[in-house]
Amino acid sequence: MAFQGKKLINKPDDVVTEFIEGLVETYPGLQYLDGFPKVKVVLRADVSGATYDKVAIISGGGSGHEPAHAGFVGEGMLTAAICGDVFASPPVDSILAGIRAVTGPMGCLLIVKNYTGDRLNFGLAAEQAKSEGYKVETVIVGDDCALPPPRGIAGRRGLAGTVLVHKVAGAAAAAGLSLLDVATEAKHAADMIGTMGVALSVCTLPGQVTSDRLGPGKMELGLGIHGEPGAAVADLQPVDVIVSHVLKQILSPETNYVPITRGNRVVLMVNGLGATPMMELMIATGKAVPKLQLEHGLAVDRMYTGSFMTSLDMAGFSITIMKSDQAVLQRLDAATKAPCWPIGADGNHPPAKIPVPIPPPALATKNGETFGGPLQLNQQGLILEAAIEAAAKAVINLKDALNEWDSKVGDGDCGSTMFRGATAVLEDIKCYPLNDAAETVNEIGSSIRRVMGGTSGIIYTIFCKAAYTKLKSSSLDDITPKKWAEALEASIAAISKYGGATAGYRTLLDALIPASEVLRKRLDAGENPTTAFIQSSEAASAGAEATKNMQALAGRSSYVFGELLAAVPDPGAMGAAAWYKAAAMAVRDKSLHT
Amino acid sequence: MAFQGKKLINKPDDVVTEFIEGLVETYPGLQYLDGFPKVKVVLRADVSGATYDKVAIISGGGSGHEPAHAGFVGEGMLTAAICGDVFASPPVDSILAGIRAVTGPMGCLLIVKNYTGDRLNFGLAAEQAKSEGYKVETVIVGDDCALPPPRGIAGRRGLAGTVLVHKVAGAAAAAGLSLLDVATEAKHAADMIGTMGVALSVCTLPGQVTSDRLGPGKMELGLGIHGEPGAAVADLQPVDVIVSHVLKQILSPETNYVPITRGNRVVLMVNGLGATPMMELMIATGKAVPKLQLEHGLAVDRMYTGSFMTSLDMAGFSITIMKSDQAVLQRLDAATKAPCWPIGADGNHPPAKIPVPIPPPALATKNGETFGGPLQLNQQGLILEAAIEAAAKAVINLKDALNEWDSKVGDGDCGSTMFRGATAVLEDIKCYPLNDAAETVNEIGSSIRRVMGGTSGIIYTIFCKAAYTKLKSSSLDDITPKKWAEALEASIAAISKYGGATAGYRTLLDALIPASEVLRKRLDAGENPTTAFIQSSEAASAGAEATKNMQALAGRSSYVFGELLAAVPDPGAMGAAAWYKAAAMAVRDKSLHT
Repeated sequence: MAFQGKKLINKPDDVVTEFIEGLVETYPGLQYLDGFPKVKVVLRADVSGATYDKVAIISGGGSGHEPAHAGFVGEGMLTAAICGDVFASPPVDSILAGIRAVTGPMGCLLIVKNYTGDRLNFGLAAEQAKSEGYKVETVIVGDDCALPPPRGIAGRRGLAGTVLVHKVAGAAAAAGLSLLDVATEAKHAADMIGTMGVALSVCTLPGQVTSDRLGPGKMELGLGIHGEPGAAVADLQPVDVIVSHVLKQILSPETNYVPITRGNRVVLMVNGLGATPMMELMIATGKAVPKLQLEHGLAVDRMYTGSFMTSLDMAGFSITIMKSDQAVLQRLDAATKAPCWPIGADGNHPPAKIPVPIPPPALATKNGETFGGPLQLNQQGLILEAAIEAAAKAVINLKDALNEWDSKVGDGDCGSTMFRGATAVLEDIKCYPLNDAAETVNEIGSSIRRVMGGTSGIIYTIFCKAAYTKLKSSSLDDITPKKWAEALEASIAAISKYGGATAGYRTLLDALIPASEVLRKRLDAGENPTTAFIQSSEAASAGAEATKNMQALAGRSSYVFGELLAAVPDPGAMGAAAWYKAAAMAVRDKSLHT
Repeated sequence: MAFQGKKLINKPDDVVTEFIEGLVETYPGLQYLDGFPKVKVVLRADVSGATYDKVAIISGGGSGHEPAHAGFVGEGMLTAAICGDVFASPPVDSILAGIRAVTGPMGCLLIVKNYTGDRLNFGLAAEQAKSEGYKVETVIVGDDCALPPPRGIAGRRGLAGTVLVHKVAGAAAAAGLSLLDVATEAKHAADMIGTMGVALSVCTLPGQVTSDRLGPGKMELGLGIHGEPGAAVADLQPVDVIVSHVLKQILSPETNYVPITRGNRVVLMVNGLGATPMMELMIATGKAVPKLQLEHGLAVDRMYTGSFMTSLDMAGFSITIMKSDQAVLQRLDAATKAPCWPIGADGNHPPAKIPVPIPPPALATKNGETFGGPLQLNQQGLILEAAIEAAAKAVINLKDALNEWDSKVGDGDCGSTMFRGATAVLEDIKCYPLNDAAETVNEIGSSIRRVMGGTSGIIYTIFCKAAYTKLKSSSLDDITPKKWAEALEASIAAISKYGGATAGYRTLLDALIPASEVLRKRLDAGENPTTAFIQSSEAASAGAEATKNMQALAGRSSYVFGELLAAVPDPGAMGAAAWYKAAAMAVRDKSLHT
């Protein structure tokens, strides 16, 4: 079935003028001639023909190839671009207007893609301009390598390689060369270029129906840039295979289209045809470079990857190979203000990859030393051990209840997930450096991270990591109850910051925040730390229970309607309250008995 | 029906690593960490963490948004980009590796798009890095304006506006600011940004089938960048209407997402979602700027139009508005080596359009003066008049024969087309300045161009224009037979150059080239000019007849098989021979009788 092509446009007839308006809005270095709709010429805002003291470089043709050609107007590249209607050669008067607008005493070079209409219209404009006294040269680019050698002149179409000719000519002109020298360089560049395209879809003209010429799983090889059928249709292959095929075709010694042989240096352009994401273009470049080196014996001096000469909304790419030498590279590398010429492609290549940095040695060593845990636990270590064991067991005991609550408000695995974490902690505890509270908290985080997937796993790991950093800032002997309270606050802050929730969002923070506030208040009031911890744990339990009446604002329950949540507490908050309370009680019991 | 999405890739699992390889091939300023497939980090080749004396700017997230984020790595923007799998948050170890690789004593800023996975993974990496002694700050960007104000934190997704935060932070870091100051600027920038997207198609994950969620003629408003459904589906509208709607939504005083009010200055970003041609993006920009000015009272300081934060191969765009001031503009305008940041968008805007240059006054005046032709013809003028009339009449008489030949080898209108040209010449001849041979030839070209369409019309206009320029180089009284021969040669050269054909291509040149050669030879041999012209015209006729045995290599017959052409002469060549011979005989007759 053929549908009207979907495009983000207004009237199909206005696409080119509206494109030009947007382009000139975007780039203050560009202007256009006030001759819409017939005269559609984009030119450098800083050039006035009468006084321009360099050779003007003018190109253009049918529109639908954006950014070509108008996006390449700028110092060091094109002086003006003449835009025809979509896929239609611009009229002679439009070309003439462009020539008159930017050509000074040094003359102008017309760079024309090899299509009959463009050749003739630019040709007549050139002859008219000459008769008006302008110095004009013309270089015609036909870089297509897809079709067998033509019987006449018609075959080799101008494709994306034309953009490289623009760059060479523009740089030569900017360097102050004469018209003849600029034309000679441009002609030489054009002779060094071969291009071939591959399409996954046919482009749709504005206002037209979309062709279904190319079925699912098919690609077209050797297409043109105007939707004309390609040389062959084939089953879609991995891009690796496609790139190999295209490179062989371009470099074929039978057609001998480009004078490139083993041992030469080349430049590569991978050009998107309009609807091809950069990801795919870069993948093609990444494959083309080693193939050129290994399969064809060519050194690749530069790569240009992007969408330079498109075919409206066609999906696919073309590959261009240009023979390079120092003179060509100098022109390609020369600075330009043309907005759509790629930057950053020049310069020497350092090694593509460097080693992943190793984690700080301090940590690695510490982990090594602490393996197996301390031989003898001090009192702090014994209390910490009791608290961790109690907390883990509380979570294990609550598994089924947590799962049940979660099945009503989430995906039903909260208990199982926390069970995995608690079990890992109990397994690993014999290796924790329990006399070093900070490192032990860090190791708990590692145990949890190892087994607990999903959001809750990473939340608890962040919890431990933030507490660790806070605890570690004190010396070993100086981890006071107040320090623990600060560590809890740091953990809550980190969870809140990265998780995005805060009090009242129906998360574990609704247990931990009240606990933290009570703990801090009681300690500040001079309460016995153990009692303060117990009181704080009661606040945690109360907070967790209170989530029954909260609407979910974050986490697993935020997509469930309010009514469903009533009477079900947040399982995350209940789990947190459970281990917190168990730890508090264990600390009290252990403190009393040691 | 759902089909496997067509992509130019290899294994779907390898798209991200192969993208990175291609990117780093293309841009020598980039490197990556040698930790594929788990660690996928692109970093500046010129930065080594241990010695880096600026704040490192690190961003990243799921892949599939290219060029974000790796394409924005470069001096003045990102120091490293952490790439997850497609649409999947990068793992903590990968983020940590990136932090360790580029962070020096000044610390690093993590810029994170507001998705739970990214917040948590970057958060844990930040906490881990802090515990290793790194200074780390985090700024979370949530610029989405499509959805109603969220109940909790989840709603405002990070979209294309994040790229503007990268630029502001990168420029602030490059300016040598402290971590806290860089983070403050980045946070401020993030608070000034609103974005909303519109899609015409749903993106397809590598290796997956293409969704048919969006039918023909439909668009989705307020989509995310991971293929998640948009806020609404609507009938596709002209882009004008879409842009208005999106701007209103972003700037809505009800949601109050961005602190932008009438009289403010703003920056505009129109961002392609992966498969949107530049033409369409520029059209949107061209419409958005006046709407912002006229409908919202906002001055637009900068426009960034391109594909910055894509969603694989999604067709559509997002629009971002950012409140700007001198400080922000300074950051946005600051130089960067990041390859995918748009260049040339800064600077003051000159008038968008300038007048079309008027044709040289000399010509205009001359045309005015010569209107109506000379009052009194001299001998040259009389001969020229006779030759033109005879030539035109010969073409008119040959109309049916030319059409008949052309119907066998082309589209059958050669006679009619040339008839139109000849008739126009006969109509206009009374206005030709016949005493001025050069200008008369030029006027013949104008008559032809006015009425003859297609290739032959422009070929003959070029013919006349080239002859005119040659004849004009002599003074009026000095147009010798040799000069005429030179003019014929110039005309042939121009036709050959722009039309691409030469002798033997079965075109009008097969009449004109032999004629030109005989004319030159006879004149050089001292032959009487009139006789030489007659002899030359016989060569033209013989040449035209000989096209019967030629294969077509250019022009109308080049798609017709050889056998069909046998015994049919090329109508273009026959037409040229006819007028040439008629002119020669008229010159002889007129010379004899005056």
